Formats: sequence, structure tokens, C-alpha cells
Amino acid sequence: MRELKVAVLGAGTVGSQVVRLLTENADDFAQRAGARLKICGIAVRDVNKPRGSAVDPALLTADAEAIIDDADIVIELMGGIEPARTYILRAMAGGASVVTGNKALLAEHGPEIYEAAAAANVDLYYEAAVGGAMPVVYGLRESLAGDNVRSILGIVNGTTNYILDEMAEKGLDYETALRSAQELGYAEADPTADVDGFDAAAKCAILASLAFHTRVHINDVHTHGIRQVTAADIAAAREAGYVLKLVASAKHRSEGIELYVGPSLVPTHHPLSTVHGAYNAVVIEGEASDRLMFYGPGAGGNPTATAVLSDVVAAANKKVYGGHAPRELIYGDVNILPASRARSRFQIRMVVPDEVGVLCAVTGVFARNNVSISAVVQERHGSSSAEASALTVTTHEAAQGDVEKTIKELSKGIEVPIDGSQRVVSEAQAATLPVRIENFIRVEEA
Amino acid sequence: MRELKVAVLGAGTVGSQVVRLLTENADDFAQRAGARLKICGIAVRDVNKPRGSAVDPALLTADAEAIIDDADIVIELMGGIEPARTYILRAMAGGASVVTGNKALLAEHGPEIYEAAAAANVDLYYEAAVGGAMPVVYGLRESLAGDNVRSILGIVNGTTNYILDEMAEKGLDYETALRSAQELGYAEADPTADVDGFDAAAKCAILASLAFHTRVHINDVHTHGIRQVTAADIAAAREAGYVLKLVASAKHRSEGIELYVGPSLVPTHHPLSTVHGAYNAVVIEGEASDRLMFYGPGAGGNPTATAVLSDVVAAANKKVYGGHAPRELIYGDVNILPASRARSRFQIRMVVPDEVGVLCAVTGVFARNNVSISAVVQERHGSSSAEASALTVTTHEAAQGDVEKTIKELSKGIEVPIDGSQRVVSEAQAATLPVRIENFIRVEEA
Repeated sequence: MRELKVAVLGAGTVGSQVVRLLTENADDFAQRAGARLKICGIAVRDVNKPRGSAVDPALLTADAEAIIDDADIVIELMGGIEPARTYILRAMAGGASVVTGNKALLAEHGPEIYEAAAAANVDLYYEAAVGGAMPVVYGLRESLAGDNVRSILGIVNGTTNYILDEMAEKGLDYETALRSAQELGYAEADPTADVDGFDAAAKCAILASLAFHTRVHINDVHTHGIRQVTAADIAAAREAGYVLKLVASAKHRSEGIELYVGPSLVPTHHPLSTVHGAYNAVVIEGEASDRLMFYGPGAGGNPTATAVLSDVVAAANKKVYGGHAPRELIYGDVNILPASRARSRFQIRMVVPDEVGVLCAVTGVFARNNVSISAVVQERHGSSSAEASALTVTTHEAAQGDVEKTIKELSKGIEVPIDGSQRVVSEAQAATLPVRIENFIRVEEA
Repeated sequence: MRELKVAVLGAGTVGSQVVRLLTENADDFAQRAGARLKICGIAVRDVNKPRGSAVDPALLTADAEAIIDDADIVIELMGGIEPARTYILRAMAGGASVVTGNKALLAEHGPEIYEAAAAANVDLYYEAAVGGAMPVVYGLRESLAGDNVRSILGIVNGTTNYILDEMAEKGLDYETALRSAQELGYAEADPTADVDGFDAAAKCAILASLAFHTRVHINDVHTHGIRQVTAADIAAAREAGYVLKLVASAKHRSEGIELYVGPSLVPTHHPLSTVHGAYNAVVIEGEASDRLMFYGPGAGGNPTATAVLSDVVAAANKKVYGGHAPRELIYGDVNILPASRARSRFQIRMVVPDEVGVLCAVTGVFARNNVSISAVVQERHGSSSAEASALTVTTHEAAQGDVEKTIKELSKGIEVPIDGSQRVVSEAQAATLPVRIENFIRVEEA
């Protein structure tokens, strides 16, 4: 049986499990790949750092370039842009196929890397870049080739999903939930990439590129994080029959595609509402296939290693039997819409004076800005302030720009045609009453 | 751009949508496939029968063999064993790759067809055979190649899922729910294949073959249908925190694999419990990847057509760029366990006389047969019969054969050491009290 040489770049959480599984299940992988897969080296920064028993110290090297040049397949698990980018381009130029889990690199430099793979006639695989063991890259790149995807809605960041879960289940505030995630190792000491939505935005760009056969850059994704989410937001969501999740959303409209990452209200009967902790899920709506969902552990050394190894088997198959992985398809060449034109339902929570005519004035502002209202709920606000009421307005689908204009206008206060004795007066004499916007958030369809 | 000829066998619900989508989205498919896909003929039994506007009458022919011999890719959507089998073998021998949705044929003659494909160096694809648009065949055959699958648990028959849903939601009995499914077109006039579990068993055999890299025949699957399920069973399930579903289950144990299709109690917090109506879902537990789930519409012309077309794109890619689809992998060569050795949790409902010592006698029978009990609930039975009580026994994991022996022994009556005045007497004088077994059913782990 033929032998293929595999170089592993990086021996962290995922890399060490890749090495372990590839060694322990060598016979299984030989059957599936059609070749014996031999690890020709594991590149690490510090060869003297103690590693688990799975990693044979004799394979460790600080000379990444030497093992890259020797390999048939290069597995890049270093993360970050450089030197990962340079190593991948070098591997491809030398005739090796590449398996990577590097979402940041692909969302930033995907086209360059795809083009390098095509030019060198080698393959690029990256299942581990999105959703750990959940095979959604495979799904979009290959197994859904029979349909046109209309939208993707996913929970693709386990860290923020864990934090929001903790807030919802234990009533914690954001800072406390973040610390708990950090103590358990679910969040990094610098949590920026997760909590500010950048990790999810990179994944959103990768999935949207595949789904719509077009190029999407991470900067095309309108990205919001969860730092501003409060316990009150989550409680209000629950009361209204929603769960607050950080979603990645990509929608194909007739005018172009909309890309959004950020907090969103997911109805409790939507399949994403039950995705907890570090699990990921992606719901795909196809023109003819209706609604599909992929679900699985979104991170972790072992699950992510299986995604890497599936890609290694596929790359090896091509080396042995010919053919190649799907190349970048960009014939879709779709227009990317600005955030202001993105359409969604929205929920706006505000505090207004409890006066006659307020509801009419508020809903009037929405109407003037082309935002159609689906529901309004009015409640006395707090116990101490009997003169204020809390309004929760849920809209029909509307352009985000129109909703933002509505909010800006409301923030300046509303004109109510009453005087101090609550008598209706002429428009010229109308009182200007203050409106305090508490929050405004997208609402997903069931 | 190269052109590939595609022959379609059958123009029913799925076939007509395949033709429509392939025609309407011809440019998209050319980009994805790397070749223009030209329908060279649609074989039907009656060329004069009126078809939808999607099907060009000029392409219809009764001469299947002529278009098979002309084609690069043959799509078989006739169903049934013959003449589908003969046509597929003919297509392969002539050098065409084959895409089929024929689960019955594959579960019966899979090895013969796989071998014919390998001998002729053509490809066999069959995503549409299991779960409509849900890409679980792709998942097991390609995208999970990085892991060893330990178990599969799925809802893979939409008809029975619809019937059980109707029974659960509307309190209908089986016959009424079946008639409703027939009136809506969800069930055939002869519902045998669905309600007796054969359709699910064929799918279970296909998935288990892929998951465990071994040959599984439909007859290897221990199959039970839903005809005997009563409204009382469903009500009892709900009270105990379960949903009654027809599941397909395949488990890899150290001694071999267990294959089961039949009614099972699914805990309400298990992801399968929320799969309703004609939707399908398959939960896959991997050694390293943890729990994955695929979910999607399990039937219907459009969704199933997308699965067929994904396969056509894959087959076309291989024709254009080389390489081949995964061949049959049977290196696993796993032992298939008899039903009696299948292990599961079980729930047994029975009616017993309401006498002192009955609970002790009943649980003693379980213990003697090596069946460990997890819970017993005792209730007064009905209102009229104050002297009987209903016992619901839930076991820990036990061998099905041991549970069956327990039930057989219980059915003969239990010996209770009391006399007519409920005084404890010697064992020799013990009364034999009758036990009526109401139902016994598998229980899935959460």
C-alpha cells in the first residue's frame, strides 16, 4: 500500500489529538484513505515543552519548512495569519495538499489561498474552520450542490453561546458569566475574538462564500458582539418567548446578500433555541430542499481533530485515486448589501412617560419611517415610577436603516398634543416628552 | 465546456422535480459540475400519461435501455427491485455512473451493485435513499471519515412519524391517524412498507453499512412496526416524560453490532423528541466527535430531488476531473448480534392484583432474569377495579432476551405467599396471582 507523508504544524489542543488519533487508528485510516498516512514531522515553536504521551518527541521539530517540503499533505493548526499563510502557500507551491482549521486566515485571504491551490493543482480542505466536528463546510461545498441556498442562520461560536446560556439560566450579568467561562477554559484571557463577534464573523464569511458561490470577506459582515447584553435583555427576551443568541446570518435577497453577526432573538420553537453550551448548529434554507440543520460540538480537541482527519482522508483519496477537491466557485458574484439595507424583524424596548397619546405618537414615528409594527406591549415601568411605562415594540420585516432612523427620531423625544392637565391641545402647543431607548435587537423568524 | 448526458429512469414525484430543477438551473449546475448536464431521455412506462409542464414530452421514452446505453450518468428513480437492478447493472457495465434513491434495492443487493461499480470503474451515489434532502449518506460516507462511529439513532420514516405525531397531539387511535395520513397523501393505500418498519429497516441497513464499514442486509435489522401502538401507549409515554417514536438504531458494541427498527421511548430532552411530521433526523455518536445531528425534510419531490442532483454534480465532477466516489469499505467485517443479545433500557407496563407482596414478587422475577430495575411506578388501575394496580417498570440497560424471559415468566402469574385473608403463609401454600402484560418497549438514553 502506498504511503503518504503528513506534516502537522502546531501541537496544541487540536494538533495533539490529530496526532493521537492518526497514530492509534492508523489501520482504519489506511483503509479509508487508500494509503498509509505517515506523520513526517510536527512543527512547534518550542520542541522542549512537555507534550502529552500521544506526541512522539522524536517527531517534534522547530523547522516547519523542512517538514512542509517533505510532505504530501500539510495540516496547518497554528492559527493566526502569519506565518500560517506563508507556510500554506509554500506547501501548495511544493505540491502538497493543505488541511487547515484557520478561519481567520480564510476569511481574510481565502481567494489568495484558493488561487494558489488551483495554480499548483493541489487541494484545500478546511472543515475544522467552522463548527468543530459538525460537517457544515462539507455540506455547503459538496453535499448541497443540488440546490440553491437562500439563507444560513447559525450558532457558530461556543464561547458566547456558553456565556449567554449562563446568563439565561443563572441570571448572571455579562462580566460574571465571562469570568466563569474563563475559569473553565471556554474563554481566552483576552476574549475579544469571541465576545466581539470576530470569530463568528470569519465563519459567517466562509459559509456565505460557499453557500452563494461568491467572495465574502470578514469585513463584509456587519458584526456586533455581546459585551453590551444585559441580564435585563435576556429576561425581556424570555418573557416575550425568545432566547437571546449570538447568531451568524447570511441571506440571499434579490438585491444582494446580507451578512450579520450579533445578538438576535430566536423564537423558543426555532431549532436553534435549544442549542446549548459549546454546541454549534447551522440551519440552511434551500430553494428546493427546505430547511436543513447540522448540529454538533463546535470546539474541543477531539471533535475538531475528527474534522481535520476527515479532510486528510479526502485529500489522501485524491492523491491516490486522482480528481480534486471542489475549487473556489465565484460565478455567483453577488452584490453585498450595506447594513442599512439589511432587512429583519426588530424588537425595540423603550421607557416613555405614562401619558395619554404617547402610544399614538410613538407608533406614528415608526410609520413615518416605513417600519411596520407587528406587536406593542406596554407595561408599568418598575414600582417606584408610576409615571413611566415600558414599551416593547416588535416590527415586521424592515430595513435596518429605517429602524435606526426611527430610533434616532424617538430619542429626540415625541410630540404629544396634551397640556399639563392632560387636555388635548393644538399641535403648535404639543408637549415634547422624553423617550429612553433601552435596547434594539434583531428578531429571527420561526 | 464539456457536455455529459444524463438519463432519468422514472418521472414520478421526485423524477419530475429532478428534470425541472436540472432544466431551470442548468447554468448553475454547469458551473458546479464542470460540464453541461444534458438530459438525453426520461424513461417511463406510459409515454402518453400527462406530466407536468417541467417534463418535455419529446424526452419521454418507453425504451429505458436505449437511453441507459447513451448516458454518462443514469438517475434511477423507479423504485422496487426489478427492473431497477437490471437497469443499474446495465448502466454500470456500459460505463455510466449511477445515482439512485432506491433504498430497498441497496438494502437487499447493495454488495452486488457496489461490486459492479468497482468492476466497471464507475461511481455509485445514493444520498436520496435515506432522509430526503438531509445529507446523512454523504456525512457517513465522506465527511465523518475522520472518526469511528459508535452509534446511530434516527427518525428516518416520515409517514410513521406523522402518524405517531397525530396520535400524540390529537389523541387519535392508530387507524384514524393512518386514514388521515392516507387522505393527505403521506401514506400509501397499502401502508405496509412504512408502518411495518421495512422502509426504515432498509435505511438502517444502509446507514449501518456505511457507519461500521461492514455489510448489513435488511434482514439483519430486527424490525417492528407501529400497528400495535395504542393511544394508551402514547399517553403512558408522555406521563413518564417520553415521546413514542419509530426509531432506527444501530450500535457498535465490543461483541458486535445491534440493529433495531421499531417503537421506542425517546426522552423529551433528546434532540429526536422534537422532530415532527415528515421531518427526519439522525443522531450520530462518534468515538472522538461526540454527538452530531443531521436534520431535514425526509421526503417530498423537491427536497429529495436536491439530494439526487447533489449526487449528479459529484458524479459529473469525477467524470470531468478524474478520481472516484468512495468504494464500498467492508474491512470492519463486524459480527451482527441476534435480537436476544441486543441491550437497551426497556419499559414494561402490566396490570397486577392489588395485594400485599405483589411488588416483591414481580421485582423478584426481574432479578432472577438478570434485569436490573431503574424505576417502578404503581398506580390504582382504572376506577371500576379497585383491586388491580398498574405497574410501570423501567429497567437499566439489559439484554432483550432476558427481558423477554422475564415477561414470559410474569405472564404465567406470580407466586405470592399470602392466603385469601392476606395472611402470610408458607411458600408451598403461596397463591398464584395473574399478571397482564400491557406493553413492553425500548427506552432510549438521553
